[in-house]
Amino acid sequence: MTTLTTRLSVPADSPFGPANLPYGIYSVPGQPPRPATRYGDHVVDLGLLLGEQGENAVFTEPTLNAFMAQGHDRWTEVRAVLQAALREEIAAAAVHDLDAVTLHLPVEVADYVDFYASEHHAANLGRLFRPQNPDPLTPNWKHLPISYHGRSASIVVSGTDIVRPAGQRKGPDDAVPVFGPSARLDIEAELGFVVGTGNPMGEPISVEEAEQHIFGAVLFNDWSARDIQAWEYIPLGPNLGKSFASTVSPWVVPLPALDGARVDTPVQEPAVLPYLAMDRPWGLDVDFEVRWNGEVVSRPPYAAVYWSPAQMLAHLTVNGAPTRTGDLFASGTVSGPEKDQRGAFIELTWGGTEPVMVAGATRTFLHNGDEIVLTATAPGPGGTRIGFGEARGRILAHPSDGR
Amino acid sequence: MTTLTTRLSVPADSPFGPANLPYGIYSVPGQPPRPATRYGDHVVDLGLLLGEQGENAVFTEPTLNAFMAQGHDRWTEVRAVLQAALREEIAAAAVHDLDAVTLHLPVEVADYVDFYASEHHAANLGRLFRPQNPDPLTPNWKHLPISYHGRSASIVVSGTDIVRPAGQRKGPDDAVPVFGPSARLDIEAELGFVVGTGNPMGEPISVEEAEQHIFGAVLFNDWSARDIQAWEYIPLGPNLGKSFASTVSPWVVPLPALDGARVDTPVQEPAVLPYLAMDRPWGLDVDFEVRWNGEVVSRPPYAAVYWSPAQMLAHLTVNGAPTRTGDLFASGTVSGPEKDQRGAFIELTWGGTEPVMVAGATRTFLHNGDEIVLTATAPGPGGTRIGFGEARGRILAHPSDGR
Repeated sequence: MTTLTTRLSVPADSPFGPANLPYGIYSVPGQPPRPATRYGDHVVDLGLLLGEQGENAVFTEPTLNAFMAQGHDRWTEVRAVLQAALREEIAAAAVHDLDAVTLHLPVEVADYVDFYASEHHAANLGRLFRPQNPDPLTPNWKHLPISYHGRSASIVVSGTDIVRPAGQRKGPDDAVPVFGPSARLDIEAELGFVVGTGNPMGEPISVEEAEQHIFGAVLFNDWSARDIQAWEYIPLGPNLGKSFASTVSPWVVPLPALDGARVDTPVQEPAVLPYLAMDRPWGLDVDFEVRWNGEVVSRPPYAAVYWSPAQMLAHLTVNGAPTRTGDLFASGTVSGPEKDQRGAFIELTWGGTEPVMVAGATRTFLHNGDEIVLTATAPGPGGTRIGFGEARGRILAHPSDGR
Repeated sequence: MTTLTTRLSVPADSPFGPANLPYGIYSVPGQPPRPATRYGDHVVDLGLLLGEQGENAVFTEPTLNAFMAQGHDRWTEVRAVLQAALREEIAAAAVHDLDAVTLHLPVEVADYVDFYASEHHAANLGRLFRPQNPDPLTPNWKHLPISYHGRSASIVVSGTDIVRPAGQRKGPDDAVPVFGPSARLDIEAELGFVVGTGNPMGEPISVEEAEQHIFGAVLFNDWSARDIQAWEYIPLGPNLGKSFASTVSPWVVPLPALDGARVDTPVQEPAVLPYLAMDRPWGLDVDFEVRWNGEVVSRPPYAAVYWSPAQMLAHLTVNGAPTRTGDLFASGTVSGPEKDQRGAFIELTWGGTEPVMVAGATRTFLHNGDEIVLTATAPGPGGTRIGFGEARGRILAHPSDGR
């Protein structure tokens, strides 16, 4: 029997070159989903490339969870093996064109937490939601990375259509709450972090140890119904305004692929409590683009985010709370200081009062049929860029409504 | 081969008679956890009683999830078969004494949501946390059942020790936040509801359909660090003040076992929106007892809870959010109108200003070594009571502290 082999080549400026090698889950018609990496515009089956015996049996699973659970040393080893293997002749059967596969949710999500880590975003929301307060930030904001738990079951992969949610809302002119499809449907452009291995109850993960636990990063769109959220969120926080859907990109970019993107976070003043102090740069110079019906409307800079992912994980666990393989925590909306760097439309259109032009039409919040695509890249070696792929979603009408 | 058989008898006034038959997961030394029912003080292995072939293969699983996923008709059928089987001679090997087994978390928890459904509790907390507001209830409270998502990974079975959490707090006299073990560790006596079968994204569960989806009920203690919670919860709700641990009782009481406990909820005025309207009584006449170091300090009446579990599930899904087998939603603290009916110590001791005597000692919040046991019963047929068992937990010192 002859095994057909091939040698893959990737353009030198590809955002999916040998310095990236993200992990995802793909399938081809008639076959179950399996782990893969993306190399240029090739999707390479990990089991067929590296073998499926012993420790590599995880490369036959329908999610990345079993591989992630093998731990940090194993991730390091597999990444090195993968980089070496892709320089050689490989089995042609392991390779598919990106266009020929279906990409799936890469991770079975355990607990999901969304942070509020961008100062520009938090300040903008404070001004819009609590204009009576002299300081747009709440008193706790610079002392701890604020977050809330969200619904894991409604996290979907890029390309999944998003049905406009219905719910209760009560505008300033409504005497009583009304029920119906959200009239203020929004996005939040975020970076999500996947926990590869968690911590047992009672044994917090320190900032220093976070590096060993975070498997990688994804793009994350936390679709938000602002009218539902505004009515429900006091005093226990957002729920129905968010829980209908969140979109993640299909490729998990390994943390080491972002080594070239490490920068200092913005200066944290007042000084943080010792359990949040960082021993190395944990900011990430990741540049987002938000496309609304094909037009770039915003370029949020992740480097401007105040709290780092290591601080987020350390804070989440400092009370002894356990995390697990497959936990996902996201940054919250990434917004920069400029108007065209705001990662949510409620900020970009200032609560809907300052419409923007999108592909020749006026917009404040999302119309049915609108499509949002988040993309991002980060600095890689030798002037290259590391790509995150995309988080894409199109809005469908609520069944009760043709809005 | 002879199979040893036995006929079980249970006292007529047992809270675990043939009208209850809750489901749980037990193990004996050297054997894996398996599903069982409790009959009096006997634990009866479901696989050994009913067989393990075909549909009954779910009775060899280490959680109830596979059985629950079989759906409402199957739950009805198994309950009838179980009631019939327990009247006959059964295999002695299927039966264990309650004292001889270890009980486990009965359900692998998917998404977990905690409500705020008791008006007395919400009003008490409003008076304590937001004394400046003329109305202790927030404007949305009587229009929707408020809730937040919590951490599934930290839900533990009765009997698990609870380590005092550490975290940030900032008291009124603190210039800056301080870090350390919680000084205001509290309980919340709640009823939890287990979702047996969920809904696909975009297809809400109506109030009328809730009956088909709710598998049963458990006791739930939402341990709460009030000092951590008070500092963190604005604007995104509680997180670290709760996420360190919640305790559930090991036996899931099937919803049909609570038929005799159905009562009307308190009058809901103003009228709810149509999607929250109920077509049958959904209040539950479940009487709690809260034991603090062996002494009953409170008797919260579940019948006083304003929002019903059917309304909770309908609200959770009305925006199209999916639920899954193993989802757990809890009521929030059950408090009645009287002081000795308050289900949290922050209410019972009015923010710590009115200490109570507990077994000869003064208490406001929990001391290390304190043990809390929640129990509850509900009306069953012919003057009997339906038992929930108990949710028990003892407080251990934080490693940094001998408090």
